[in-house]
Amino acid sequence: MSYDCSFLEDLSIDGTVSFEPSALNNHATDWLTEATGEGVTPDAVVWPESTADVSTILSAANERDVPVTPYAAGTSLEGNPVPLFKGISMDMTKMNAVLEVRPDDFQIDVEPGVMGNVINEAVEEHGMFFPPMPSSADLSTIGGMIVNDASGKKTVKYGEVADWVLELEVVLADGSVVELGSNAVKTSSGYNLKDLIVGSEGTLGVVTRSTLELEGLPEQIKGGRAVFESMDDAVAAVFDTVRSGVDTAKIELIDSLAAEMANDYLDAGLPDGSMIFFEFHANHGIDEEIEFFRSVIESHGVVEFETSSDERMDELWRARDDLAFAVQQYDPDLSPRHPGDVTVPISKYPEIIRFAKDLADEREILFPCFGHAGDGNVHYTALVDPDDEEMIHTAEEIYDAVVERALEYGGTATGEHGIGMGKRRFLEAEHGEIGVEMMRKIKAAFDPNDVLNPGKVFPETDEDGVRVRLSDD
Amino acid sequence: MSYDCSFLEDLSIDGTVSFEPSALNNHATDWLTEATGEGVTPDAVVWPESTADVSTILSAANERDVPVTPYAAGTSLEGNPVPLFKGISMDMTKMNAVLEVRPDDFQIDVEPGVMGNVINEAVEEHGMFFPPMPSSADLSTIGGMIVNDASGKKTVKYGEVADWVLELEVVLADGSVVELGSNAVKTSSGYNLKDLIVGSEGTLGVVTRSTLELEGLPEQIKGGRAVFESMDDAVAAVFDTVRSGVDTAKIELIDSLAAEMANDYLDAGLPDGSMIFFEFHANHGIDEEIEFFRSVIESHGVVEFETSSDERMDELWRARDDLAFAVQQYDPDLSPRHPGDVTVPISKYPEIIRFAKDLADEREILFPCFGHAGDGNVHYTALVDPDDEEMIHTAEEIYDAVVERALEYGGTATGEHGIGMGKRRFLEAEHGEIGVEMMRKIKAAFDPNDVLNPGKVFPETDEDGVRVRLSDD
Repeated sequence: MSYDCSFLEDLSIDGTVSFEPSALNNHATDWLTEATGEGVTPDAVVWPESTADVSTILSAANERDVPVTPYAAGTSLEGNPVPLFKGISMDMTKMNAVLEVRPDDFQIDVEPGVMGNVINEAVEEHGMFFPPMPSSADLSTIGGMIVNDASGKKTVKYGEVADWVLELEVVLADGSVVELGSNAVKTSSGYNLKDLIVGSEGTLGVVTRSTLELEGLPEQIKGGRAVFESMDDAVAAVFDTVRSGVDTAKIELIDSLAAEMANDYLDAGLPDGSMIFFEFHANHGIDEEIEFFRSVIESHGVVEFETSSDERMDELWRARDDLAFAVQQYDPDLSPRHPGDVTVPISKYPEIIRFAKDLADEREILFPCFGHAGDGNVHYTALVDPDDEEMIHTAEEIYDAVVERALEYGGTATGEHGIGMGKRRFLEAEHGEIGVEMMRKIKAAFDPNDVLNPGKVFPETDEDGVRVRLSDD
Repeated sequence: MSYDCSFLEDLSIDGTVSFEPSALNNHATDWLTEATGEGVTPDAVVWPESTADVSTILSAANERDVPVTPYAAGTSLEGNPVPLFKGISMDMTKMNAVLEVRPDDFQIDVEPGVMGNVINEAVEEHGMFFPPMPSSADLSTIGGMIVNDASGKKTVKYGEVADWVLELEVVLADGSVVELGSNAVKTSSGYNLKDLIVGSEGTLGVVTRSTLELEGLPEQIKGGRAVFESMDDAVAAVFDTVRSGVDTAKIELIDSLAAEMANDYLDAGLPDGSMIFFEFHANHGIDEEIEFFRSVIESHGVVEFETSSDERMDELWRARDDLAFAVQQYDPDLSPRHPGDVTVPISKYPEIIRFAKDLADEREILFPCFGHAGDGNVHYTALVDPDDEEMIHTAEEIYDAVVERALEYGGTATGEHGIGMGKRRFLEAEHGEIGVEMMRKIKAAFDPNDVLNPGKVFPETDEDGVRVRLSDD
C-alpha cells in the first residue's frame, strides 16, 4: 500500500519535500538492505530545517495516520531507517548545525544531522573530544548514533553514546516538543526518559537537538599491534588483559581469516596470524601501563609486538582500519552478507569466537570475525555468492546460531547496531515475553497511532505483511 | 483511610508479616520525615524472603487495590519510602544475600537488601570495588541506591549508580517477574527498560536482584585537604580544577560556616576558612597529577595544602567525613531541616553557592553548604528552631529559591536523593508539562492500579488528600 502524502506540500515549513523517484530511491535502504535488496521506497521525502518543521510534519502525519521514518546518513546495519510501510522518509541531514560549545562545562549542543567527525573538529581547539564515537564517525550522524545507542573502539575505556548524552530535545508523534535530561552531569529527578529515547531507533520520538558531554584529550596517546601464533592465543590475551584491569583505550581483535583478507588488500607483507590492535590514553605513565599490558599477554604466544606514538601507530593499525574494505574486496564472486555484532560477558569471549569459527569452518563459509574485543563485542560477516540461495541460507543459519549462543551466555543480540529489521526475531528471546510487553506498552503510550518508524524493533505486521496498530483507538 | 491487609496472613510465602504498632511505627518515616513529622504508619509490614514472595505479595495486593511501598534502610532524604496512603510497607532487608561474584567479568549479583559496605567487602579480595557508592555505604541498601539512582564522592570520576547496574530482576505491580538489561557491558537491543527502573523509587516495580559492574582498585591512592582564604576562592578553585580536566577521584567542598561547625565538633584546631577535600586514584603518576592540581588551584588564595597516602589522609578528611554530625550538634536549640541537594553545570557552581549563601545571610538563617563539588553538586541544610514556625517557613523559602535557581541554570532539583515527597512540587518545573505527562503514561501503563508507592514522584492526591488513580480502569 501507499499513503497520500500530498498534504506535505501544503504545510508551512522551511524545509523541502520531494516525490521524485531518485529521492525516494535514495531513502529506501541503509547499508544492510542495500546488500540484501530488502529496501522499501517511501511515498515522499521531507527535509525539515528546524524543530518547528519536525513538529509540523509529525503533527500532520499523525492526524492522517501516515508513517514517518527518520533518515540520516543511511549507514546503519540493521535496516533501521528503511520505511517499511512506506509513507514519509524524514531526512534529518539539513539540521546539521553545531549550536554551541561550552568548554567550561565540557558540553556541546548539536542538531541531529551533524556528522561525527564535525563534532570532534568543533571541540578540538578546546583540547576535547567526544569519546564514544563509532569507527564510522565521518559516515554517521550524531542523531543516528543516539537513536541506535552506538559505540566504538574507545567504548572499552569511555562507555557508549548513552553515557555521554546529557539532554535531548525530542518531538513526539503528535508534534509536541519536550526536553529530556539535564545540563547537570548527574540527576535523580523523575523517570529517566532521556535514556528511553536513546536507542529507541526513532520509534518513540525524533531527536532534534542534543547536549553531549566531552572529555579532555589525554596528554599521552600510544598504540600498536600484537600478532599471535593462533586465534585462541589472541583471544586469551584479550581476556587476560581485561580481567587484569589493564587500562586500554582501545583493544581490537581480528581473527586469522580477517588478517589474511587485510594482508591481501594492503599487500604490505603483514605477518600471518590473529592480531590485537591497542591504544592507550593517559596523562602520566603510559609506558608503565603498556609494559603491564605486555607482561599480561606475553605468555600467549606473541609473535610480534610494536608500539608507537606517531604516524607509525596509524600504519600498525591499518589492517584493522581498512578491514571493511578488505572483506568487501577479498573475492569478486563473494559479497559480505548481513554484517552483525553480538556482545557477551568477557569471560565468554573465547567461547563465542571459537563457536562462530568452528561452525563456519564446518559449514564451509568464510566468516571473518573482528571487533571491540575488550567489550566482549564480536563483529562478523559471512561472504556469500549472492546468486547461491543455499549458501545464503547457510550463512543466515550461522548468523542466527551465533546470536542465540550469545544470548545463552547472558549477552546481547546487538551490541551497537540496534534491532532495526535485522534483529527483531531475537527481541523476545533476549528480553522475554514480559520485557517485550513492557516495551510495547511504552510504544503504545507515546505513539498510539504507530506512525513513528512502524515495523521496527517490534515486528508489527500480520501474516499478510500489513501494518498492525498497537492501540485500539 | 486504612486498608484491610489481613489477606497477607493467608498468603503462601516464606516471609513474615506484622501488624504490631512498633513494626508499623518503624516503617512510617525515613530520615527526612523523622525530622519533619510527616511520617505515615502503614497498615501492615511484610518482610519477603524471595522473589517468589515479592511476586505473591504484589499480585495479591494489586488484585485488592492495596498500596505497597518498598522499604529498606529508611535512610533516604526525600521521604521516598513513606507509605503515604498507608497499606503495606514491604521491607526488603531480609533479601540481603550476595548471590555470586564473577571476578573475571568484574560483576557481582546481589539481593536488594545488601548494605553498600557488604558489597565492597565481598569483592575486596579480588582487588575490586563498587565505585559509585554513596557516603552512607554502611547505612544504605543497594536496592535503595538503585531506585534512587544514588551517587557519591567518587561520582566525579566514576559516574552514578545507574552507570554500574548491568541487569535487574524486577517484580511488576501485577506480580510478574522480568529481567531487564544484559550481562554484556554494552547493548543497543530494544528500549532501555533497566534505566527506567533505576531512579523510579519503587513506583514502577520492585527490584529483587541486580547485577553490578565492578572496577579494579587503583594501584595508587592519595588525598588531602586545601584550605582557602575565602569561600569564593575555594569555589573558584573547584571550577578551575574541573575545567582544566584534572583527574580527581573525589573533590568535595565545605563552606566556611560548615568548616566552623566541623571545627567546633572536632575541637581539633583546624584552620578557619572554606576547604576542599580531594582524593586521586591512578595506576601510575599520581604525584604528577596532584602537582598539576596544585598548579591549577594555587592562584586562588590557598592557605594550607596537604596530601597523604596513609592514615593521615583520613585525618585530613575528618572535617568532611563527620560534617553531618557536626551540623546536627552545632547548636542544641537548632535542628537541621530538610537536607537537600541540587546539581548545576560546573560553570554555574560559583553562582549557585554565592546565591544560596547571600540569601541565607540576608534572611539570617544558618545554611551550611557542602557537597560533591566536582559534579556541580551542592548539599545544604538549614538550622532552625523546631518550635519557630516563621523560621521554618523562612528556611523553606530559601530551600525553594535555591532549587528554582538551580533549574534556571539548567541544573536538576535533585542530584542524588530522588523526588520522593520532598521534591514533587518541582517535577513539572524541571521536566515541563509534557515531560511529566510522559512519565505519567509510563506509570499508568506499568501500574494501572497505582499500587506501587502511590503519591511519590507525582503528587497523586486530590484537594482532600485522597489517593487519585492514574487510569480509568
